[in-house]
Amino acid sequence: MISKQIIEDINNSSAIRAMFTEGQQLAQEIGAENVYDFSLGNPCTPVPEAYTRALLEVLDQEESPVLHGYMANTGYPEVCQAVAESLNHRFGTAFGGRNVIMTVGAAGAINIIMKTLFDPGDELMVFAPYFTEYRNYCGNWRGVLTVVQPDFETMLPDFADMERKLSSRTKAVIINNPVNPSGVIYSREVIAQIASLLRKKQQEYGHEIYIISDEPYREIVFDGKETPFLTNYYENTFVTYSFSKSLSIPGDRIGYLVIPDEMADFDRTYAGLAIANRITGFINAPALMQKAVARCLNEQTDVAFYDRNRKLIYRELTELGFTCIRPEGTFYLFLRSPEPDELRFVEAAKRHHIMLVNGTTFGCPGYVRLAYCVPYEMIVRSLPAFRALAEEYGLKG
Amino acid sequence: MISKQIIEDINNSSAIRAMFTEGQQLAQEIGAENVYDFSLGNPCTPVPEAYTRALLEVLDQEESPVLHGYMANTGYPEVCQAVAESLNHRFGTAFGGRNVIMTVGAAGAINIIMKTLFDPGDELMVFAPYFTEYRNYCGNWRGVLTVVQPDFETMLPDFADMERKLSSRTKAVIINNPVNPSGVIYSREVIAQIASLLRKKQQEYGHEIYIISDEPYREIVFDGKETPFLTNYYENTFVTYSFSKSLSIPGDRIGYLVIPDEMADFDRTYAGLAIANRITGFINAPALMQKAVARCLNEQTDVAFYDRNRKLIYRELTELGFTCIRPEGTFYLFLRSPEPDELRFVEAAKRHHIMLVNGTTFGCPGYVRLAYCVPYEMIVRSLPAFRALAEEYGLKG
Repeated sequence: MISKQIIEDINNSSAIRAMFTEGQQLAQEIGAENVYDFSLGNPCTPVPEAYTRALLEVLDQEESPVLHGYMANTGYPEVCQAVAESLNHRFGTAFGGRNVIMTVGAAGAINIIMKTLFDPGDELMVFAPYFTEYRNYCGNWRGVLTVVQPDFETMLPDFADMERKLSSRTKAVIINNPVNPSGVIYSREVIAQIASLLRKKQQEYGHEIYIISDEPYREIVFDGKETPFLTNYYENTFVTYSFSKSLSIPGDRIGYLVIPDEMADFDRTYAGLAIANRITGFINAPALMQKAVARCLNEQTDVAFYDRNRKLIYRELTELGFTCIRPEGTFYLFLRSPEPDELRFVEAAKRHHIMLVNGTTFGCPGYVRLAYCVPYEMIVRSLPAFRALAEEYGLKG
Repeated sequence: MISKQIIEDINNSSAIRAMFTEGQQLAQEIGAENVYDFSLGNPCTPVPEAYTRALLEVLDQEESPVLHGYMANTGYPEVCQAVAESLNHRFGTAFGGRNVIMTVGAAGAINIIMKTLFDPGDELMVFAPYFTEYRNYCGNWRGVLTVVQPDFETMLPDFADMERKLSSRTKAVIINNPVNPSGVIYSREVIAQIASLLRKKQQEYGHEIYIISDEPYREIVFDGKETPFLTNYYENTFVTYSFSKSLSIPGDRIGYLVIPDEMADFDRTYAGLAIANRITGFINAPALMQKAVARCLNEQTDVAFYDRNRKLIYRELTELGFTCIRPEGTFYLFLRSPEPDELRFVEAAKRHHIMLVNGTTFGCPGYVRLAYCVPYEMIVRSLPAFRALAEEYGLKG
């Protein structure tokens, strides 16, 4: 007699995790070296030494009852201040500690923002292909998801579709930049176009439409590309961030959100976020991790590692005749399925021991996602399997 | 244009935190040594050395990308197993790792249980006086709170009121043992009586009524008292636990829940909890803390410290003529207000620089809560202020 909704959630359970589990089972049967598991976005670059050193320093230098104790639900003031200064340095912003709330990862940040914003039936707009969990987060707070189709040439938003689907109930638009699963980066121009359309609609409807800019892959960009920092483009923007990818610490659950001074009704919105952080059960971001990340805000993971993987897999797959969106960031490749029903393609790949995630999961049928945050050698080993798969589909390399 | 509910939440914001904030402001004005702040349940005993040592060992011994990486959403299997064995040792249970899910504190555990169980309109029964956040957690998942009145002599549940208020919509009953804010322990007999009534009602309504047994203060008990372990008394019981009090680490956000084999529809309920942990945004309990607490499951905070405080404050206040429930556990004292409107009493106490929390916050008007997890010396310093307060009310010591 558990809830009807959770039964539905169980039945639609994450295709990503399901594929990961199947991959692990297959590895037990035929050996891990014979399974090419591209399902899960689990960073595999080493944790920067600076993070471990920061943890050790904090444990050594800080008084224990304070260190592990409650602080303001929004985080240690000096940690919020350090994050603000780091952003100011990088993006020319003028944040203070008041503009930063430490959170249990980006997932925690997004949930408390939605809890703060949504009345039942409010609409959240997402751009396909989109990170599948946004649907669940939205459902937690009784929002309704509206999906904007992509321009399939560029995988950028189809602006005509976006304009059609904005309504008087649209409360927020979520942008994930760079995009999981396509690896595309929304440029300044794209962001400016989104911002301009939202401003027009804000005026038309006479109320705020918020942007939630989810940026866990902000630093994982290639070819000298950059990810625009959204508060510089649109006033009513929340930025959410996780250190999961940049420091390879997804298990440690540490991130933050940014609320700029220009936010409508700043004081009350900030107060709402602080309360939401508490009453959703997060209470506060883990104390020790707050102190640790504050000491290594300029550390980065080995982006060159992911870039090397990207170049290999993109070159090889396109040479085999597969059609891929060229990734500019993240560690994902979005591949067009050689047959319309990508679920059949996922099954075919699995017969070659290649684990992929179906695009329907991301609101984009006909595609599959491949996570290349894996050892380089695994990609090399997988190439004959991809070749066999291409031949099975009669692709011309 | 934030949500109507969060605006209400802001307006009703935690009296506990509000009083804590007022106390801090007062401390700035007249000096911290002149403010007697009994508002916040922030443990003040030292963090056991074993916890710091465990963190250092984990950082030294475990491989970093795995250590800080994603694990199953339910936690590291070996950590769940260690918790299960520790419980078996203490409570004669027969749990395995399958019966434990690591969570972001007890607050995280309660929220994922409610998300898993509640359909809109399902009722959660609480026993006044109750931890005020239960109302918020229940509201997150669209539950409706039903409050059972206490027997004011014992502060135990009024069973006639409980039976009257159980309905076909009652989905769960939350027990907090020992009780925050009264410090009372529900004995085996009380638990058996609750269990028996719920079994009868389960049969009458033909569906499960779950117990959520929230036990963050389980180890903070005095005079050789013990807290019954609830799965030994009732099948459909979830136990939630936090290491916040037992290790003085509330900022680190680490706890767990127990789901026994006897739980109705075990497999699907477990699957629901695992998904709920992910999609609420917790994802998993902080990885590093999981590994650390697994290494010090038998560590305890200095209960004698709290007991010394308890004895002093209880003796002094009753001698001054105040009427208190004699606390058997936790680090709270529940005091009957000398005037019917306890808000006026809270204000009067504040004029003597004593910060208390009004009982209405806990569903129990006419009482106030006093958190004695404070330095012993602060209690000693506060006694003249309590004496003056007692005289103001004409109490006869």
